[in-house]
This record gives sequence, structure tokens and C-alpha cells, in this order.
Amino acid sequence: MDTALPDHPTLPVRTGTEAFRALRTDGARLLRRIDELGRIGADPLGGVTRPAFGADDRRAQRYLRAEAAAAGLRTEVDPAGNVVIRQAHAQVPGPVVLMGSHLDTVINGGRLDGAYGVLAALEVMQTVADAGVELAHTPVAVAFANEEGALFPQPFWGSMALTGQTRRLPDDPRDRHGNPLAGPLRQAGGDLTQLSRAAWPPHSVRAYLELHIEQGPVLEELNLPIGVVTDIVGRVVHDIRVLGRAGHAGTTPMGSRRDAAVAMSHIVIAAERTAAAGRCRVATAGCVTVSPGATNVIPNEAVLSVEFRDESPARLADAAASFLADLRTVSELTGCEILAEETLRTVPVPTDPGLQDLIASCADGLGHGHTRLPSGAGHDAQIVAAVAPTGMIFVPSLKGLSHTPEEDTAPADLVAGADVLLRAALALGSGHP
Amino acid sequence: MDTALPDHPTLPVRTGTEAFRALRTDGARLLRRIDELGRIGADPLGGVTRPAFGADDRRAQRYLRAEAAAAGLRTEVDPAGNVVIRQAHAQVPGPVVLMGSHLDTVINGGRLDGAYGVLAALEVMQTVADAGVELAHTPVAVAFANEEGALFPQPFWGSMALTGQTRRLPDDPRDRHGNPLAGPLRQAGGDLTQLSRAAWPPHSVRAYLELHIEQGPVLEELNLPIGVVTDIVGRVVHDIRVLGRAGHAGTTPMGSRRDAAVAMSHIVIAAERTAAAGRCRVATAGCVTVSPGATNVIPNEAVLSVEFRDESPARLADAAASFLADLRTVSELTGCEILAEETLRTVPVPTDPGLQDLIASCADGLGHGHTRLPSGAGHDAQIVAAVAPTGMIFVPSLKGLSHTPEEDTAPADLVAGADVLLRAALALGSGHP
Repeated sequence: MDTALPDHPTLPVRTGTEAFRALRTDGARLLRRIDELGRIGADPLGGVTRPAFGADDRRAQRYLRAEAAAAGLRTEVDPAGNVVIRQAHAQVPGPVVLMGSHLDTVINGGRLDGAYGVLAALEVMQTVADAGVELAHTPVAVAFANEEGALFPQPFWGSMALTGQTRRLPDDPRDRHGNPLAGPLRQAGGDLTQLSRAAWPPHSVRAYLELHIEQGPVLEELNLPIGVVTDIVGRVVHDIRVLGRAGHAGTTPMGSRRDAAVAMSHIVIAAERTAAAGRCRVATAGCVTVSPGATNVIPNEAVLSVEFRDESPARLADAAASFLADLRTVSELTGCEILAEETLRTVPVPTDPGLQDLIASCADGLGHGHTRLPSGAGHDAQIVAAVAPTGMIFVPSLKGLSHTPEEDTAPADLVAGADVLLRAALALGSGHP
Repeated sequence: MDTALPDHPTLPVRTGTEAFRALRTDGARLLRRIDELGRIGADPLGGVTRPAFGADDRRAQRYLRAEAAAAGLRTEVDPAGNVVIRQAHAQVPGPVVLMGSHLDTVINGGRLDGAYGVLAALEVMQTVADAGVELAHTPVAVAFANEEGALFPQPFWGSMALTGQTRRLPDDPRDRHGNPLAGPLRQAGGDLTQLSRAAWPPHSVRAYLELHIEQGPVLEELNLPIGVVTDIVGRVVHDIRVLGRAGHAGTTPMGSRRDAAVAMSHIVIAAERTAAAGRCRVATAGCVTVSPGATNVIPNEAVLSVEFRDESPARLADAAASFLADLRTVSELTGCEILAEETLRTVPVPTDPGLQDLIASCADGLGHGHTRLPSGAGHDAQIVAAVAPTGMIFVPSLKGLSHTPEEDTAPADLVAGADVLLRAALALGSGHP
């Protein structure tokens, strides 16, 4: 789905009042919650598997709501399955300052991707509430549903619903096995029939801030705790189906085969070479299955996902076009029919320049070194950017790893990120900018 | 596992007595049984999935035993799960004439591969019994367990057990998901703890005859109903595990990836080129899985099977060696660790020349055209050949297809094959050869 560039002006920046400057998040509390939430869906051998709308994702939701309720905050689940956390007694006279990320994970992923940003947003909410701070623009935290699309291949589901961008989602969303979303969504507190009610009115978000791990190696290499995200790369995903012809592996001559595994292999390598040759930043074939999957049967079908990412729309389009030409060559070479469907396209999205400056200024005020950098990963922020000024804060990922059990960040950096988020939320909430 | 060349003399041939020459199988009964058995494990969309030791394989066993019992024959299941069918009152003074094949199928295979040879053997048993023929060497039919190895990767399980060649099978056989065989085998009437009792004494088989579909295009192209198999190609199977490193598909630079899907793809293509370049007859990567299998995660692991087949032991060894060298190159290219284990090796096996002549003579006597040809597929016959003179009869496969739902053979050819089997069994059983 295309994400339109924002139609709102960028924000001028002033940091918050002097009184706010002493406020800090409770780092120990934040780290405890990260640990506790990381146990939900944890594999005993390491890693977290918590695909959206599954049992563990619902447990994570319940954990978040219980912690928020214990902190005296109000929580609700909207029809899309988003968890929204508000201050108990806040009147909402005008646009809110929205903060958040997502609770769902990829298969065998880490405990920080998404969860960190949600828990930090909760931490900011609680810190503001406990301090009794009155703000002109009240803070709101959100855990967006199904950012990853690990089981239900409709990533950014929750942020698209909240921002009224569901038009290009399927009418009858289903998971990768063909099971409909309606039931699991209902179990998660949502309601597919009321999805349009999840959309917030225009101009109800003054700014959206998302704190996230970098998931790449830049901040660690520079030894800086804070990253100010300049833009989020665009991404094109193709779901590809290869139709060959099954046959006996011993008796079918090589010359008369239509081997779906051979065609699939040429496709994976063509994708990899598209990026390795410099046409785009990265290319990945992540989801590959081969049927029927027996040692002595020539495969008749392969299904795979291939995705490309780049910060330039033109390079992204060129990479995709080059790849589709490769698919035709593979089809001619192998005799297999190849069906490619573009199932996701997100254009590169720049963040709000004013919020970039605000985040940098907040990091400076806290004494945290920072740099500006693009995000190689997609985030709910790129969806929200269509309706509100959006900023993103990164903290370093150890060894640049993410979407893997080894995903981790130094505790001090996790706390530093939350404090930058707090300070930016206070500045925006106080109405100064 | 190596299959030693037979240490017994080849058989001189004379066809049976004049009295036997009028005997024919009941073609309609055979075709009915093929239809009925083909419904067990049938997919409504076509094809049969009846992996060994599964529920449908057990149903197929029960069907076979019920049909045999209704025909007045005795059946038993040995500790390996083989179904053995004997004449009700036969004294067994000397070596028997064994006929058979297997009931299990590959995933989404056809209804004839294996099942045809078992039902034709039953048909011969019933025809002989109904005719009241007394034979010096009594016929015995067998349905060997797990010839295909579709779920439990120990193909030729039953024929290896019956011929006392279990030495190189694993002590604790498990299926592809790691589940032990003992339970399913017990459900199928076998007993893993008594496996050695499945072995027949030396010299208890005078000859083994296996009737099978060709699974290749030769007989159809020559428009001949009968094939006399000269030898069975050898086969080497490697189970390969590729260990890469998971990472976020958007943030991990191409240069620092260890992508298991890319390495797997190079391996599949290297295997295909080994055969396409003429080093061996055929090569196939049939069983391919990639983990964790999410669009936005660089795969950290791939598992695949790669098999090579040829009628020359030297060419087979050369192909495998060349492929293993390719694996080292792929490992260097991709940074992935590649573990290869040779899980199956069957040497090419010639059939008994005397039985080749007998089968040809029986086909001539019935007026069925025939040719001699090798088998590109493996068969239980190659296992039994280590302990007894072995012959194989082929009938044509439509379009040469097998291990696929489209697998089929003209009804007249199915009946012709059974009649050749009957005549050969009578000739061998009468003691003339």
C-alpha cells in the first residue's frame, strides 16, 4: 500500500519548560517490564515467537493492560486490536501526543523489536501521571496490532486502521494457512465488522513518536546511544508461486523436467543479485516452501516471498522491474510457470524535520550522544506519517542483530531512549513547539 | 546401504507345463481392487498420500488382508510391518516363489506405484489357489513396509528386514519430525524389539518377482505392454543442513549476511547441474525447507535432500564427489556452514539373467510385446536381489509419469502384466526351471 506523503506542515521546535527537565523515567521498572513481557511467547532455547492475534500476543496485550491499569491508566482495545492507553482523568481538548509501537514479533524473533517502544511509551505515561504534570496536549500510548505480519500477512494492520488507511487491505484478511482473521481478531478484543470505527478523526494526533531499537549496526559502530531517524526505507514485497510438474526423481529425464525447486533457487539468487549488484539497498527471500517435499519426487510447486528495500522510490522501482524481468528468464529456463503478485509496497517515508530537531535537542539536553540515520526496517511510524508529524528515536542493537533471538540492547541505552522519548513528549505536550 | 551382488547361481529357464497355459488372472477383479485400494489415502483433488505406518497405510494393509482372507488365503504381519500372504493349506517343503511390492506411497503420489504389484501378487495367489494347482515351490505374496520412506526416511525398510539386511538401519528409527518409529510400527502390527525375527532363513526364496509400473516413458514410446528389467539404477541420497545467521531483512547489509536460503539455492542448482552436465543420469533436490520462514527475516537454516541416480557405480561416485566439492564452494561463497550426510546409498543392481529370459518367454507365450530396459527408480527387488534370484516386470506409465496424481496405466496393460507374473510364478513354482 502506498503511504502518501504528509499533507501537514512540519513542526517548529522548542523543548519543554524548565520544570520538566528534572523528570526521568523509572529505568528499573522499564527493564523489569521488558524482561517480563519477553517471557511471553519465549522459546526455552531463546527467542520470542509472538505472532499477532495468536495466544501469546493476546497474553502480551493482557500483560500490558494489567501493568497500565496498575499504574492508574485507562486502557481499551479498538476494533483493529490496537491497545490504547490514556491518562485516567485527562480531558482531551485538542490533538494528543501519540507514542507507541507494537507487541507482535516475527517467528523466533527478539524481545525488544516493538515491545520496547510500547513499554517505553507506557513508562512515559506513568511518569507523567505520577508527576501530576498537566499538559496542553495529552500523551497517549498505543500498541499497534500486527506490525510484523508474521502469521497474518497484513503488516501495519493496526496503524493503518487507526489512521484510516484500510482501503487497500483485503476485505477478508486471512493468515498464511488461509484461516480468516475475524475469529482471532475477536479473541484479541477487536471486531472486523467495526474496523472503520478504529480510525481516529483527522488532526487528532499532534505528533507521533516511536522509540525503537535500530536493528542495524550503525549506532553500535559509532558508539552512540541515540539515533534520530531521518527516513524509513520503502519496501516492495512479491509473493511468488512457481508451478512445475511433479514426477519420479529416478525415472524422469533431466531434459523433460519442470522442477519447481530449481526455478525457486534461480529466483532466490536473482533477488540476492539485484541487491548485491547495487540496484537497491537489500533484497531477501524469507519465506520459502517447496511441495510436495519428498526426497524422491520432483517438486511441482514452490512458494516464496521476495522483498526489496531502498530509501529511493526510483531505485526501488528499478529493482522490482529488473527482478520481474529475471522471473521471465527463469520461467523460460526451467519450463515452470511463475506467478508474481506484489503484495506490499511502502514508499520511502521521511520523518518530520522539526521532530528530528526536537529529538536531537532532547538527547543533547540529557547528555546523550546521537546521530541522524535512515531506518532500514519498516515501522508503524511510516503509516502514521501520512496523518501526523512523525518522529523516530533509535537505540543501538548489539551486533546490529534483530528478528533473531540474539537481538539485544544495553540496559543503559534502553533507559536513555525512554528518557529522550519522555522529554520529547513533554515538550510536545506542553504546547511549546 | 550397499546391496551386495547375489551369491547364488542364476536360474536356467523352462516355462510351466502345458496344463498351466490356459490359466489367466481375473482382470476385472484386479482392476476393482486397484480402484478400491486407490481410494485409501486419496486426496479429493487427485492423488494418493499414504506414507508408511500412517493411518491410511494401516487401512491399506487391512484392505489387503481382508481381500486375501476372503479369497481363502492366510495373511500375517511380520515384526517389520510386512504383510505376508500364503496359501491356506500349503506345506512349504522348500524355497518359495515370492512376489510383491509395497503399499505405501509418496506424498501426493499415484495409486499404482507399489500397490499394483501387491494386488497382482494377490491375484496370482488367488488364481493359483482357485485352480487347485499343486506347485513344488509354493507362491507367497508380500507387501513390503515403507519402500518409499516418505515419512520415515528408512526406505526399503520391510524388504531389508525380511532379507536380514537391517544392520545399517538406525537403532532408533524416527520420522522426519523426530518421532520414533516404534509406536506407529506397533500400530501397524509390527514390533521393533523383534525386528530380527522378520528375517527369513537363507535360501528360503527360490526367486523373487516384482511387477511394477515403469514410472518412465520408454514402454509408452515403444508402444509395448511389457518391460523386462535388466538392472536397477543405484542411488545416493544426501541430507544437507545449511546453517546461516538470522537477521532483519531490512537492516542487515548484503555484505554481512549469511543467508541460508541463498546457500540452499546454490546447492539445488549445483545438484541439478551435476546431472545436466552428464555426470549421472538424474539429480533431484526433493525435500527443501527454509527456517524461520518469515518475509522479513533472513533465513538462518535450510534443510534439503539431494539424490543422484545412475546405473554405473563409478559415475555415481564421481557425481557425489563433484557435488560435495560444490558444497565447499557454496559455503565459502555464502558464509554458511553446510553439513552433508549421506543417508542412503544403493549400488546399481542387475536382475537375474535367467529370470529376464523367463519373463520374456512368458510375455511371448501370452502374445505381449516386450523390451528390456533398466529401472530408473529403486525397488524392493534391489534389496531382495542380495538373497535370491530376482526378476522385475514393467508395464507402461502414461506420459511416463509417476509419484504424481497423474500416474496411470492402461487397464489392458495392468492385466497383461499380472498374467505375465502368473505365468512366471507357475513356471518357477512347478519346479521346472
